[in-house]
Amino acid sequence: MSLLNVNDVSYSYDGIVNVLLDVSFTVEEGTIVGLVGPNGSGKSTLIKNIFDLVRLQSGSIRIGGHEHARPEAKKQAIYLSSNDYLPEFLTAREYISMMGKLFGLDVDHGEALGLFRKFAMEGRYDDLIEDYSHGMRKKTQLVSALVIRPPLLVIDETLNGIDIEALHLAEGEFRKVRDEGRSVLLCTHDFAVLERLADRTLFLDLGYVVRDEQTKDLVEEHGSVAAMVFDYLETSER
Amino acid sequence: MSLLNVNDVSYSYDGIVNVLLDVSFTVEEGTIVGLVGPNGSGKSTLIKNIFDLVRLQSGSIRIGGHEHARPEAKKQAIYLSSNDYLPEFLTAREYISMMGKLFGLDVDHGEALGLFRKFAMEGRYDDLIEDYSHGMRKKTQLVSALVIRPPLLVIDETLNGIDIEALHLAEGEFRKVRDEGRSVLLCTHDFAVLERLADRTLFLDLGYVVRDEQTKDLVEEHGSVAAMVFDYLETSER
Amino acid sequence: MSLLNVNDVSYSYDGIVNVLLDVSFTVEEGTIVGLVGPNGSGKSTLIKNIFDLVRLQSGSIRIGGHEHARPEAKKQAIYLSSNDYLPEFLTAREYISMMGKLFGLDVDHGEALGLFRKFAMEGRYDDLIEDYSHGMRKKTQLVSALVIRPPLLVIDETLNGIDIEALHLAEGEFRKVRDEGRSVLLCTHDFAVLERLADRTLFLDLGYVVRDEQTKDLVEEHGSVAAMVFDYLETSER
Amino acid sequence: MSLLNVNDVSYSYDGIVNVLLDVSFTVEEGTIVGLVGPNGSGKSTLIKNIFDLVRLQSGSIRIGGHEHARPEAKKQAIYLSSNDYLPEFLTAREYISMMGKLFGLDVDHGEALGLFRKFAMEGRYDDLIEDYSHGMRKKTQLVSALVIRPPLLVIDETLNGIDIEALHLAEGEFRKVRDEGRSVLLCTHDFAVLERLADRTLFLDLGYVVRDEQTKDLVEEHGSVAAMVFDYLETSER
Repeated sequence: MSLLNVNDVSYSYDGIVNVLLDVSFTVEEGTIVGLVGPNGSGKSTLIKNIFDLVRLQSGSIRIGGHEHARPEAKKQAIYLSSNDYLPEFLTAREYISMMGKLFGLDVDHGEALGLFRKFAMEGRYDDLIEDYSHGMRKKTQLVSALVIRPPLLVIDETLNGIDIEALHLAEGEFRKVRDEGRSVLLCTHDFAVLERLADRTLFLDLGYVVRDEQTKDLVEEHGSVAAMVFDYLETSER
Repeated sequence: MSLLNVNDVSYSYDGIVNVLLDVSFTVEEGTIVGLVGPNGSGKSTLIKNIFDLVRLQSGSIRIGGHEHARPEAKKQAIYLSSNDYLPEFLTAREYISMMGKLFGLDVDHGEALGLFRKFAMEGRYDDLIEDYSHGMRKKTQLVSALVIRPPLLVIDETLNGIDIEALHLAEGEFRKVRDEGRSVLLCTHDFAVLERLADRTLFLDLGYVVRDEQTKDLVEEHGSVAAMVFDYLETSER
Repeated sequence: MSLLNVNDVSYSYDGIVNVLLDVSFTVEEGTIVGLVGPNGSGKSTLIKNIFDLVRLQSGSIRIGGHEHARPEAKKQAIYLSSNDYLPEFLTAREYISMMGKLFGLDVDHGEALGLFRKFAMEGRYDDLIEDYSHGMRKKTQLVSALVIRPPLLVIDETLNGIDIEALHLAEGEFRKVRDEGRSVLLCTHDFAVLERLADRTLFLDLGYVVRDEQTKDLVEEHGSVAAMVFDYLETSER
Repeated sequence: MSLLNVNDVSYSYDGIVNVLLDVSFTVEEGTIVGLVGPNGSGKSTLIKNIFDLVRLQSGSIRIGGHEHARPEAKKQAIYLSSNDYLPEFLTAREYISMMGKLFGLDVDHGEALGLFRKFAMEGRYDDLIEDYSHGMRKKTQLVSALVIRPPLLVIDETLNGIDIEALHLAEGEFRKVRDEGRSVLLCTHDFAVLERLADRTLFLDLGYVVRDEQTKDLVEEHGSVAAMVFDYLETSER
């Protein structure tokens, strides 16, 4: 089954230029899909459409089988942005409870505490987020997504700037998510992470899906995902 | 009628020390109430209780006549924090639409555009928030609260660091809110703002309501709100 | 003696519009001078001229008797900006040592530790700044200026957002600076702080010094500094 | 010739535990060296020692042939931190001029403007940094280092979160630096960037140099730099 189904989505801010043009792709259950896009690719607009932050203009989007603007759909997916802006006047416990409530569930704080320990933040769960470093804030976002356990995780550069152990742990956690039949849409410029994790890589540019292939096929063809992307940047008429 | 009714609220994080102890006060329709509290006063915990970010332990809180944890109550009040952390990948228009949706309403973007003009941000409404200065982000938060128009605005140091004209404008807007029978709970250390705006001043310390008086009476008695607070800090056994 | 002597300074970014026009004022030894200016007043440009961050175009500036661009002048004054951006990979001890070195002195860490205790940051002096809250960062900036003890402190909205006790303490420290014959140029929109501290208030707008008077005379004439400023904003042809 | 010569450097904060133990390595002219280290590896302390932000306890460090604490040494290397904290009240032009002054040179603003154009920031050079996005701030840091042209660039996760084109351009610029006989010490967790750029990779852990090898040899032996690092993390008794 597809956890995310984007079907023929086009979008224009001004009615003239299309920022997205007939974008279609799916994220199947139990897969990790990488999403790569340079500036002006439409990646942000695509994410805003998926999460109903702008009104869909044409095409359709289904999350977990539900039309994307419906409340049922909104409980199927969580979005972690590249920022580490959390409400500073809350503790991690309070933040994670609040996030849980938005998804209609009582979070298992024992599980969150276990992840805090694994992510080298033991003893900090009840401290105010205003005293957390940037890395800790990113890891707190990850922990919230891991304990809320929605079918689909959309991770937008959230791994940037976290330490190597945390990166290694996060990769392990994403593999577990996949093993459980859930899915991850991973937006990142860290091509090594993509090559290690992503079953499929989606390359978006100028509002089009330029490539949508098995990551291993891309690597075989181009040597690396980076080579594919940089070759494209150098040869395309952008 | 009381827009906010806090009645005998106590709170402890560890079951031993009370961070709030029998806190009671009201914010009546058409008033601006100042809330002042030093570190460790319990001010943050009070706000978390009001907005149901921690579970009420004893006492009761009503917002607009509704029990504070009910969905109806949550549409009666908006909280603006001291941070200027907005989702950077949205434009102001998208952010304000999203905030409106949380309150179940379609925002009047014409009104928001008018406020953007007044607040010297003409032509920036459709720019990404990631390109806004700190001052612009604070003003965007204010604009969102002003167009959503909930009965109660809780403003927590949001005016810090905005420019003088914006401060002057914001004060005028808060007076309009009061004239319309709506209310503002204004948490600030800027005692001059308090003296200009707040009908009543609430001084919290160590979990108690130390003073709850007409601001003009406090000023008459102590010379200024600052003098009252600083005298207290110097003489109390904290 | 004047610690700061700004004499007939004009400045234009484009050679056409003057952002500063014949600005002259002094900060005498042992005084606290408030500097107030709305958006577009030229306040930032004035500070950049004083600290030689833009090249002086006309007029002259002397700090501690030295021509402002000379190395001797640069050790006479410290500038604390409104941001709390400190190098996060340093501890407070390392940061304050580094700042001391820039002023050619070995900082007295015992004094800094004493101030950390007074400012409720005991035991945090050797922690990385990346784990400090915004308030702690602001207080660390203040401590650095207080232990470096240059003749002139220029404080630009640095007190925004610190807690009430810290504000109260900082005001006491600034009075001590004044008692020692040193001086403070205090840029702030917190008019209550100005009225409590500033011997003289300088009001800048559109590149001109609009007012330069004893603060108590301004308060006597207008009721408050805020009233003077807001009346001006409402009646001027800006 | 070695641009950076770290020789038998040990360091302890408390006189008991060594955070660095006999660390020795060199960065030769015309090379790009990757530096990888997990939490607690001593990487930050190493950088603080190199840039004389903590006092050297044992061993020696030479930059461009000069003892590292001497003024001549300090003009041989620039450090770009992972933060994007620039003085917000300056324009890029003013910031880059100020940085140039610290290195005793008049910056070529034409070259900086050219890089602004290449990095998709045309027309923003004279805007205040407070209006720049995080990505623009990172790119401005890069441009400052590229126009100041010191023999050694130390880049600490500065490429995190910049867009793909900027990453591609930055890689090209680093190769030019190498071609000119200058050098880059590149601290990053982006192992794909390391594999593309770094001639040699240094892996630090627990204060020791664990590996110091040609990157291509590491890749040949382990499949990838990431595999080497993650294998190490899983098998070491940390």
